[in-house]
Amino acid sequence: MSATRFVTVEGRFRMKEGSLTRPTVAFETWGALNDAADNAVLIFTGLSPSAHAASSPEDRRTGWWEDMIGPGKPIDTDRLFVVCVNSLGSCFGSTGPASVDPDTGEPYRLTFPVLHVEDIANAGLVVVDHLGIDRLHAVLGASMGGMTALAFALLHPQRSAALVAVSSAARSLPYSIAIRSLQREIIRRDPAWNGGHYEQPGPVTGMMLARKLGMISYRSADEWAERFGRERTTDRGDGSDPFGLDFEVESYLEAHARKFVGAFDANCYLYLSRAMDLFDAADYGGSVRECFARLALERAMIIGVESDFLFPIEQQQELARGIAERLDDVTFHRLPSIQGHDSFLVDMDRFRPVISRFFRAD
Amino acid sequence: MSATRFVTVEGRFRMKEGSLTRPTVAFETWGALNDAADNAVLIFTGLSPSAHAASSPEDRRTGWWEDMIGPGKPIDTDRLFVVCVNSLGSCFGSTGPASVDPDTGEPYRLTFPVLHVEDIANAGLVVVDHLGIDRLHAVLGASMGGMTALAFALLHPQRSAALVAVSSAARSLPYSIAIRSLQREIIRRDPAWNGGHYEQPGPVTGMMLARKLGMISYRSADEWAERFGRERTTDRGDGSDPFGLDFEVESYLEAHARKFVGAFDANCYLYLSRAMDLFDAADYGGSVRECFARLALERAMIIGVESDFLFPIEQQQELARGIAERLDDVTFHRLPSIQGHDSFLVDMDRFRPVISRFFRAD
Repeated sequence: MSATRFVTVEGRFRMKEGSLTRPTVAFETWGALNDAADNAVLIFTGLSPSAHAASSPEDRRTGWWEDMIGPGKPIDTDRLFVVCVNSLGSCFGSTGPASVDPDTGEPYRLTFPVLHVEDIANAGLVVVDHLGIDRLHAVLGASMGGMTALAFALLHPQRSAALVAVSSAARSLPYSIAIRSLQREIIRRDPAWNGGHYEQPGPVTGMMLARKLGMISYRSADEWAERFGRERTTDRGDGSDPFGLDFEVESYLEAHARKFVGAFDANCYLYLSRAMDLFDAADYGGSVRECFARLALERAMIIGVESDFLFPIEQQQELARGIAERLDDVTFHRLPSIQGHDSFLVDMDRFRPVISRFFRAD
Repeated sequence: MSATRFVTVEGRFRMKEGSLTRPTVAFETWGALNDAADNAVLIFTGLSPSAHAASSPEDRRTGWWEDMIGPGKPIDTDRLFVVCVNSLGSCFGSTGPASVDPDTGEPYRLTFPVLHVEDIANAGLVVVDHLGIDRLHAVLGASMGGMTALAFALLHPQRSAALVAVSSAARSLPYSIAIRSLQREIIRRDPAWNGGHYEQPGPVTGMMLARKLGMISYRSADEWAERFGRERTTDRGDGSDPFGLDFEVESYLEAHARKFVGAFDANCYLYLSRAMDLFDAADYGGSVRECFARLALERAMIIGVESDFLFPIEQQQELARGIAERLDDVTFHRLPSIQGHDSFLVDMDRFRPVISRFFRAD
């Protein structure tokens, strides 16, 4: 049973470059909107999750932020109305490159317009409007979702009272661009990608390799040194391949990549990945520092992780300092988690109290 | 004109796993061996360079460590006799997977024995013996070459008076193993690799992608942020490919990868890359710390770079501390270069004085 709901835009949805005809945005909600309609928290996701951030009576499957959302949890659904959207351009209910273009009856594939983080933010606003929420209690996101939450606050300053950005950035720098660009090229060079014209399962090899590179960029050397050391895997096959799985860390990457492949559409991956490269908050004011003049927040919280090299801590600091020049109530947390960029998904003991305190402070 | 010389092993050359029939080891030399034959410096290379470390009257092409080796330079060939070997398993004159197996008349390809850093060190010893050198003034290497120099000193404690290891490690940890494993898999998944049975140019796409991942792992985020920022390339083609070159950093990676492809044999790359994963100095004493009891050095210098995440500074520290427990004359340099693992090839202003001081202190 799914708890996913859908809202379809009537007519055309304008994007930063181009437009879509009657796109759908998928979302889930937890808790109830209060009478004043001022207790809603909108969550944007990272590149790959669906709107299923947490389980509910309608869908008991564990969500991607299960520890964080629910009755009595840090984002407490006894008090808050939580909305999570599946990003525009993704493949879990929202319109994306794998969806059928109603104008042609064919999947968009590469005819999908260039996707920007701002488009994902605006698709989130469609849901907010649909739910009759004038001003959010907070807009929140991690990783790409943090960029999207920031874009939302920049584009629609009056629509949220607070911003929470986790392991995010005001813009992409060349190192993370290089990693994502290489992931995309790995997918595109897989002959099975076929210029975007594949049938499922599509470019499995390219997606596996790109996911492995993703995992390398999401975690940290210290975590893996502790976790795997130089352990050898028992899963070495017959040993006939001199370059097959040997070390435990290779086996771990293989298992993670296998889980991902089949679950995510390759063209959607390409579009969402590039959207991150393209995002630059400086577009809203000449520089990252000046863009924050547009914000009309009451408070903000920025969380970063020291071992994150995809969205490095310096970029979180840049965000926090820039916002603090415009706003008194800004909290910055520099967490010593060792799981790198993925810490917000796994180091719950460090993230729970920080998120909890922010939402309790109302 | 080439200055490369060759020595061929008579009969069989025993490797850690298996053996080779009459392998050749390519090398170059600079300066002259003195009468006491005690002024020789043996240099092992990183994964991809040839023995051409510096220019000479016989070969005026710039070498890969041109700034470091020559008359009056930090490794001063007015006083020192410098020898650089092309690694066994490579493709620049030394026997490797691309060479013809004299026993079959066919290229070795994947029938080449599993290559270990120790085998490369022992092939270096063949050259040292051939040149009539009983005890080296120093054995030196950077990156994989540093591992090889360490292996040389562990296997043949009496054959060198000093060790210089630059941006190296006593063993590979899972993070660098993961990066190299993924590079190898990218090459092997290229259909043109064909299980190792390719004709030249071989798996060009796989090699390009693997080289790009290499570049990402060799440099640092700070360097690229300074150098490229969010600059766009002028080299975008006709713009018809929505995922083509866009940012300057993508164009830089493309140019570097193009230079590499065609210059390096894919199977050789696979073997040398894996040799690094397999190396563990702890094999010589139960632990990294204990292995150093075997050393019979008079002095050692360990150089590491703070921004290197492939051979992280903590691993250089481990090396330096371990050796210092057995030896008084150990120097450790922690350089603040921002070019990551590649710093020893580009940040000459920082490396020159350090190397210079070591070889002047004689």
